[in-house]
Amino acid sequence: MTVLPVEERSLDPIPTINHFDSTVDEKGLCLAQTLLPHDKVFGLGQTLGSLNKRGKLYRLYATDDPVHTPDKECLYGSHPFLIIVGANTFGLFLDYPGEIIIDIGFTDLDLLQIRINNCDIDIYVFECKRILDIVREYLTVTGSPYVPPKWAFGYQQSRWSYPDESTILEIGKTFRQKGFPCDAIYMDIDYMDAYKVFTISEQRFKNFEGFVDLMKREGFRLVPIIDPAVKVEEGYNVYDDGVKKGFFCKSARDGLFFAAVWPGFAHLPDFHNNDVRKWWGSLHKRLLEAGIEGFWNDMNEPSIFYTPEAVSGFYDIVEQMRHRGFDREKIDFKSNRSEFFEDIVQTGDDGISVPHNRIHNLYGFGMAQATVEGFNQYRPGQRYLLLTRSSCTGVHRIAGIWTGDNMSWWEHLLSHIRMLMSLSMTGFFYSGADLGGFGCDTHAELMIRWMQLGVFSPLCRNHSAMGTRFQEPWAFGDKPFDIMREAMRLRYALLPYTYSEYMRCVRELEPFISPLIFHFDTVDVEDQFMYGGSIMAAPVCQSNAKGRYVNLPSVRWLLWRFRRFDERDVAVYEPGVYYISAELDEMLIFIKENTLVSMTQPVDFIGHRTCKSLTVIGFVTDKATFTYYEDDGETFKYKDGSFSTLSITIEKEDDDYSIMLAKDEHADVPIEINELIFEIYDAQGHSICRRIVE
Amino acid sequence: MTVLPVEERSLDPIPTINHFDSTVDEKGLCLAQTLLPHDKVFGLGQTLGSLNKRGKLYRLYATDDPVHTPDKECLYGSHPFLIIVGANTFGLFLDYPGEIIIDIGFTDLDLLQIRINNCDIDIYVFECKRILDIVREYLTVTGSPYVPPKWAFGYQQSRWSYPDESTILEIGKTFRQKGFPCDAIYMDIDYMDAYKVFTISEQRFKNFEGFVDLMKREGFRLVPIIDPAVKVEEGYNVYDDGVKKGFFCKSARDGLFFAAVWPGFAHLPDFHNNDVRKWWGSLHKRLLEAGIEGFWNDMNEPSIFYTPEAVSGFYDIVEQMRHRGFDREKIDFKSNRSEFFEDIVQTGDDGISVPHNRIHNLYGFGMAQATVEGFNQYRPGQRYLLLTRSSCTGVHRIAGIWTGDNMSWWEHLLSHIRMLMSLSMTGFFYSGADLGGFGCDTHAELMIRWMQLGVFSPLCRNHSAMGTRFQEPWAFGDKPFDIMREAMRLRYALLPYTYSEYMRCVRELEPFISPLIFHFDTVDVEDQFMYGGSIMAAPVCQSNAKGRYVNLPSVRWLLWRFRRFDERDVAVYEPGVYYISAELDEMLIFIKENTLVSMTQPVDFIGHRTCKSLTVIGFVTDKATFTYYEDDGETFKYKDGSFSTLSITIEKEDDDYSIMLAKDEHADVPIEINELIFEIYDAQGHSICRRIVE
Repeated sequence: MTVLPVEERSLDPIPTINHFDSTVDEKGLCLAQTLLPHDKVFGLGQTLGSLNKRGKLYRLYATDDPVHTPDKECLYGSHPFLIIVGANTFGLFLDYPGEIIIDIGFTDLDLLQIRINNCDIDIYVFECKRILDIVREYLTVTGSPYVPPKWAFGYQQSRWSYPDESTILEIGKTFRQKGFPCDAIYMDIDYMDAYKVFTISEQRFKNFEGFVDLMKREGFRLVPIIDPAVKVEEGYNVYDDGVKKGFFCKSARDGLFFAAVWPGFAHLPDFHNNDVRKWWGSLHKRLLEAGIEGFWNDMNEPSIFYTPEAVSGFYDIVEQMRHRGFDREKIDFKSNRSEFFEDIVQTGDDGISVPHNRIHNLYGFGMAQATVEGFNQYRPGQRYLLLTRSSCTGVHRIAGIWTGDNMSWWEHLLSHIRMLMSLSMTGFFYSGADLGGFGCDTHAELMIRWMQLGVFSPLCRNHSAMGTRFQEPWAFGDKPFDIMREAMRLRYALLPYTYSEYMRCVRELEPFISPLIFHFDTVDVEDQFMYGGSIMAAPVCQSNAKGRYVNLPSVRWLLWRFRRFDERDVAVYEPGVYYISAELDEMLIFIKENTLVSMTQPVDFIGHRTCKSLTVIGFVTDKATFTYYEDDGETFKYKDGSFSTLSITIEKEDDDYSIMLAKDEHADVPIEINELIFEIYDAQGHSICRRIVE
Repeated sequence: MTVLPVEERSLDPIPTINHFDSTVDEKGLCLAQTLLPHDKVFGLGQTLGSLNKRGKLYRLYATDDPVHTPDKECLYGSHPFLIIVGANTFGLFLDYPGEIIIDIGFTDLDLLQIRINNCDIDIYVFECKRILDIVREYLTVTGSPYVPPKWAFGYQQSRWSYPDESTILEIGKTFRQKGFPCDAIYMDIDYMDAYKVFTISEQRFKNFEGFVDLMKREGFRLVPIIDPAVKVEEGYNVYDDGVKKGFFCKSARDGLFFAAVWPGFAHLPDFHNNDVRKWWGSLHKRLLEAGIEGFWNDMNEPSIFYTPEAVSGFYDIVEQMRHRGFDREKIDFKSNRSEFFEDIVQTGDDGISVPHNRIHNLYGFGMAQATVEGFNQYRPGQRYLLLTRSSCTGVHRIAGIWTGDNMSWWEHLLSHIRMLMSLSMTGFFYSGADLGGFGCDTHAELMIRWMQLGVFSPLCRNHSAMGTRFQEPWAFGDKPFDIMREAMRLRYALLPYTYSEYMRCVRELEPFISPLIFHFDTVDVEDQFMYGGSIMAAPVCQSNAKGRYVNLPSVRWLLWRFRRFDERDVAVYEPGVYYISAELDEMLIFIKENTLVSMTQPVDFIGHRTCKSLTVIGFVTDKATFTYYEDDGETFKYKDGSFSTLSITIEKEDDDYSIMLAKDEHADVPIEINELIFEIYDAQGHSICRRIVE
């Protein structure tokens, strides 16, 4: 690893950065590298386009754009970590909180160009031969990934909006009545009083505290949305308090910055300042004391609908048009215009003013940090669920993200797959896209296929926009419902595997979701991924497909054509390329040769210590080991070693197998498994079963 | 074939339509059919979504929407022909010129529902077992496909805009200097004087007639755009004349319908009336007499930007907002609002008024018919190039279409492939999408892959929007240029095959571009297609892909991995599924077992009788026949039998082949081939060469 801090104003001499031609002009820094035709570029976290990021220009500038068409240059965050794989394999991390332009063979087919309008930037070049080592070095520098509470690995249901107690209660009841597992229900902006952050509509929630408690007893966590913009309204305590304390962002011209978002005109908290973050954290008191354990931070790019100046400018244009003639182009009024952000000034802990754009990509980070202040204050030591829409590198240590306002498009199901990989390699292990699609109307087939992908999405949340078709699992009739329920039962059945592997990846700084090329010498495969170390998912991502192409690299693979979690339809595949059928009620799950997968009985929601019986499915032609992991599932004590493991090793011995178990138990979290069932498959797909009872 | 005319107002009894449950209510007709899980539905011409049309709702109502995201329900035309393939295979054609809603498993997974708000509709059910027979029956009913002049099979270059003589001249010169074949250059709206249709800017074209002649001598046809809307401007002869003759559409309220498009406020010609069509045709006089041989009819859905009422409504809203507060949702001003169309009234030849919406989808057809009136008057007997953006079934007899304002998205390259198939099966043999993408910036790799697809797109036109990156073949540097030039030389080299097969398909009423499932018992393949009867194209349609999955059904296939038209890198593949590498400069072309392909030397532009030497590539394991076709390439005499054929049959005989030639020559169009070169490959990929000189 080479760390090359480039000091501000050190324009001369031009810094030397391994692998790059660097130039500095009055505008800032420009890096360029020629790419060979077969060089691949991975990384960039939450960005559109292919997994191999070549052939597109990326503008890393957090932006709320609700239409993710392929031409869009920016989304909600900035994750400036690149892995170049080819003749020279290396990693590159640009530690800079403002806008970064990364042009990977878009303007010039074989040229990677990076432009930053500033020289105050730290550049890290990771010189490792193995891709996984590059990721590990990057995570060593930027920090260990976020771990949510165990229940956050359950299915989560959202909608803009379930606006009141009775709606949420009804949704919850339906899940339980229909036996569809679910752990959380989200509350979108309508739970508030007039979109005033930290208020709860008393009309729609007569007894919020009691309601949170009631839902929790049924196994549902409620996850309220929190937006940063504070409504300008005298008498509203958050507004009054923020103004009095000087905690809102300033305008570059005069006074406070003033812009409209959901609540109408509002101020933006200045999260760049530690006092503001502590204050913001403290505002979560009522929600946290009511028993809320998770939030989603939205609109924190920040998103701005309009400013008073933009409105009066619009009126002027219309007035001119009345005389000069109508021009439909001129009235195309856009949110999040660059001039809005140019007007914002923030203030650091040192009291020094900073133009917002200089640190634009930190805004969501600051809001997440502020939220964590609240958790630490009111739920010290407890893990929390925190999702943030806007993020930058570093946020991956304290929060997960959902990928924003996607659409009910097949293209966005594929995008979900690619982003899961890109996000995981940039440290965002806990992330996911809105299953079924947020915008537009979804339909049964898309919903089913997306739910099947959701089984392998660390954040597994079904969310949809106001005005679109309802997309709760039962909204499409009995047959689709049954298929989705079986898929989601699989997710819950796989929890012992998922949680163990997630925590192993966190400890070992290895991406939890990863592309095949990180493990095998293979051609470009962008629609299959490793889920932990044993399972490869190959979701069907095309309309009307009754199967798909699958690329099986390097080793043998055991296909589990999934229909029900307690049924096995398995077959062994040699390395190669196949078209494998997968009816609408079938998923293609591949277990890598010489690995194990652990399962248990699915439940309605994730209890803390549910696992008494473990089923181990092994594909063993030689020897395989899996480390089952347990901790309390709800605190950070795992960081201090308060976790237990059960190492399971299976070795093939002529016509039989030897099974070795090794427990490493922490007193606080004893492993309570009293039954181990083994299903072991050999190279021919023949299986033996074993049962070990304690 | 069953023809079931349903008379208007014949609400009782409910008509019986084979395969469907039909109901009639006060709103019109509703058809429903349950689909089995493996039933497939093809057809619908120019629509978005997959080739198998299940899983989407289609609204057949011609609409100018420039953003073709997957959720959009309508595009520019209406092609209500469906092929249901499954337990019951049959075809369905709905002969109705107004809005048709076709919901194929979108609302309900297994239900096909059709809704037409009228009962005055002819419904055709084609009961054939073979898919190709269904298409043939449909084309027997609706008419034989359009045949453009031979030069229209060449490469065509467009841009919004090449606005003047010097720009066009420069473009033309560059093609010839760089040896990139090209037959036509398009003129977009800026050639006119203030967007006034049938004017030519005298400032930008000092001597239009001389310029057309000059370009033609260099082998370039100029293709001007024609829009329907006639600018309201006294003294402008088209306006004055149209008003005087009462040739414009009326308003349902009072007077003429009045709306703004490119020229500002304008009237729409009433193409429903034969006198108007004749008049409109006559307006092409100057252009046709100057030597123009082709037009593209744009904006003929018709597209409407706004009306005076919409503008004053907008001002009212803004005025209210000044007092009640700004609302960004309310100022979202949309083109082509439904109320615009509800106000239009047209008048038939019989003088009877018809609400426009009743015949909405005929507007583009009427304009195309009007244009053909012009061709017939000023170039009688001559073939013409005519593209229309809006179309309905029937237009396929007299014009080709381009698929409208696509984007520089990989998704739209795939969409191009699917639409080529859907359009061809609905009779639109001559069609194509804007290569490289119209909207957004394209880039080298996408442009190359799209140009490689363009080789097999009957209409092969590179077109892009104002404000986007230039995308002439030389705009991306030398390496991309060389690759694209080789691809386009292949197109020209293949002309003897393309033209022969196109004309065979027209004679035999067989789709020129077709899905594999029309010929083979195969799984769903939506990104490969038959181009005529011998060639299967498998374009690379993914970013950064250095190869692709290929499904090779039923027979052996000879892969020609194309780099240069005069090089052969071939291999024989047995039926199966493969991942086959294809570098950026390579195309995958498959020749079907026991078929032949004919080629010649590529030229800079298509002369009428260029073919003196023919190279026949054969993949012959048993026996193969190809019918080479020639006609004058420029008139309709081929319809009267004025064409010649050379039937070439190759039969395998032990270790050798016998070659049989049979000429069927028409005196007017003698076949002048004096050299025949044969390259014949056997099942092992071994080849022999033969040369026959006359």
